Amino acid sequence: MTAAHPEGRPGPTGGPWVRTVAPTLAVVGATGGVGAVLLEILSQHADIWGEIRLVASPRSHGRKLIVRGVETEVVALDEAAFDGVDVALFAVPEWVAARWAPVAAAKGAVVVDSSGAFRSEPDVPLVVPEVNAGAARLRPRGIIANPGCTTLSMIVAVGALHAAFGLRELVVSSYEAVSGAGRAGVDALRAQLAVVAGGGRELGTHPGDVRRAVGDRMGPFQAPVALNVVPWAGDREPAEGGWSSRELAIREETRRILGLPELPVSATCVRVPVVATHSVSVHARFEHEVDVERAHEVLANAPGVVLCDSPEEAEFPTPVDAVGTDPTWVGRVRRSLDDPCALELFACGDNLRKGSALNAAQIAELVAAGLTAR
Amino acid sequence: MTAAHPEGRPGPTGGPWVRTVAPTLAVVGATGGVGAVLLEILSQHADIWGEIRLVASPRSHGRKLIVRGVETEVVALDEAAFDGVDVALFAVPEWVAARWAPVAAAKGAVVVDSSGAFRSEPDVPLVVPEVNAGAARLRPRGIIANPGCTTLSMIVAVGALHAAFGLRELVVSSYEAVSGAGRAGVDALRAQLAVVAGGGRELGTHPGDVRRAVGDRMGPFQAPVALNVVPWAGDREPAEGGWSSRELAIREETRRILGLPELPVSATCVRVPVVATHSVSVHARFEHEVDVERAHEVLANAPGVVLCDSPEEAEFPTPVDAVGTDPTWVGRVRRSLDDPCALELFACGDNLRKGSALNAAQIAELVAAGLTAR
Repeated sequence: MTAAHPEGRPGPTGGPWVRTVAPTLAVVGATGGVGAVLLEILSQHADIWGEIRLVASPRSHGRKLIVRGVETEVVALDEAAFDGVDVALFAVPEWVAARWAPVAAAKGAVVVDSSGAFRSEPDVPLVVPEVNAGAARLRPRGIIANPGCTTLSMIVAVGALHAAFGLRELVVSSYEAVSGAGRAGVDALRAQLAVVAGGGRELGTHPGDVRRAVGDRMGPFQAPVALNVVPWAGDREPAEGGWSSRELAIREETRRILGLPELPVSATCVRVPVVATHSVSVHARFEHEVDVERAHEVLANAPGVVLCDSPEEAEFPTPVDAVGTDPTWVGRVRRSLDDPCALELFACGDNLRKGSALNAAQIAELVAAGLTAR
Repeated sequence: MTAAHPEGRPGPTGGPWVRTVAPTLAVVGATGGVGAVLLEILSQHADIWGEIRLVASPRSHGRKLIVRGVETEVVALDEAAFDGVDVALFAVPEWVAARWAPVAAAKGAVVVDSSGAFRSEPDVPLVVPEVNAGAARLRPRGIIANPGCTTLSMIVAVGALHAAFGLRELVVSSYEAVSGAGRAGVDALRAQLAVVAGGGRELGTHPGDVRRAVGDRMGPFQAPVALNVVPWAGDREPAEGGWSSRELAIREETRRILGLPELPVSATCVRVPVVATHSVSVHARFEHEVDVERAHEVLANAPGVVLCDSPEEAEFPTPVDAVGTDPTWVGRVRRSLDDPCALELFACGDNLRKGSALNAAQIAELVAAGLTAR
């Protein structure tokens, strides 16, 4: 077992019969929801990997999944699963990541973790390749964290505008899809819609109707989400001052990714009855004067952003249009009528792609490029 | 025909057989959606009216509706419909109000108009009784405008906080119910949900699915609203700078109601798949330092506000809880972590009650109190 190396594991492990440069990737949590999207993305992207090893809990051992068109057997999560692994993509619950990411890192793999386990650790970089790729090189623990889905649904656009105009303050309100709460969130919305909107029912206009009909179908949410919006996302327990963990995370993550440790950020997170794709209404104040034309130019040229902003032609980003796609969709760009340095905009990003699996895969590719470049 | 009187029509018109003090109310648009809620509210409130005359388009003439438990025949909208009327509540489309409100005013009635026809006229006061009741007394054209539903879903709470701390800036993002677009909005959501969420369908996670399934069931919206959010509300045509008419109206109305003509207000209006009750995420910056405890105290004592803010017990306002009720529900009150003068909060208000019919009825009652006080 080798110690984690600040610059990642220097090279391949095996004898002459092993691949020479193409690095080995492990996907931990390959059988889960985010894992499935990861395999899809890895199959679509340029194939830079030698072996792609699929890892999951022991009960999935021997199951076969398709990646890059090849049927691949799932191996059980244990120390040996990381033998010879250069990069390990973790798509597992927080407690699993907390337990196993250090094991993988100690075996020389660079870990890219999608859970919240390491996001607030100062010695674990939080990386969005379009915004702060350089941060991926400094990983003293051999672990890189993938930011949370809500931050990721807007940060590429906000980062591009920051680079152009110098961000000074951010006020955001989210419209978060139920899949942000996992499969259970999607199941809850479906079950709730079946009782409140199935069969042409005329519900939702009288008090108590929806709550009564939803009954015990609340799933992971604290109020009905069908025909409703729920101003709470994240841990059930509020943090001090009444903030939700998700709201605090947006502030913390945005500051770290943009390298603005003092940036004022106020976030309000709200769950909406959308299956996938988070939306964010953004009020951003900049150091320099802004105008819509220049903001459009910046956004149109920003990698990973699609500008979709012709309201006169009913063109603005909505979740059902952005879902299943990679970029951050941005529209409704307006300059504040009262402050020439402030912009409003509306952004949509698929929380299962850029908001999770895609950004993780991009970080892994960034790391691999660093490994093979040497 | 008498001219409109700045202080409203001084008294009843008829001979000795007429009611002596109780004023006559006309409800114009009694057969419509808002009209129905008005009749319900008038039947529940303290009965201060003499005659309540129900007025609608000529095709409803002779139809019978119940108000205050009494079956009442609908009369056709013409000049004679305003004979002897002290207060006329208009719940009709803008063009009908523009045509008939001046007629009613010229006949001596004080008009309370719920449409947008007069909201931006400087000589027509915009009134929210809990916030600026005094403004109702100054009505040079004999017309008082009822503010728009989105403004009304938060202004009572914001007004109370302004009185306590001195408002300096407002950034709001709305979560607007489909009934804000009338019956057609509700029908569109129901039709769309039937195709995308009926029969346990697994839609909404693949691009184009919802848009394809919704097809021509868009109703009054410019994108599917089922399993989606639509960052556009108001007129189809954007105003200069890409703002929607609704967003500009929130800024204008808030400034007028609070008497803060220079107040910076940035609003983003978003339609969500909720039947009734608008929600608003509010970032408010004040002149004075604020804290959650004092804000709670102010809100708990504000007439027309229900404070609902114990997230540790899953207590926060949601549309399905607020729908059908009169007050503005407020929760998620937090002090900005970066600015001791700023608060975040989340407010819900039934767009068909406080957001329309209720506020109009309250204005009418305010006017009537002024008439009978003399």
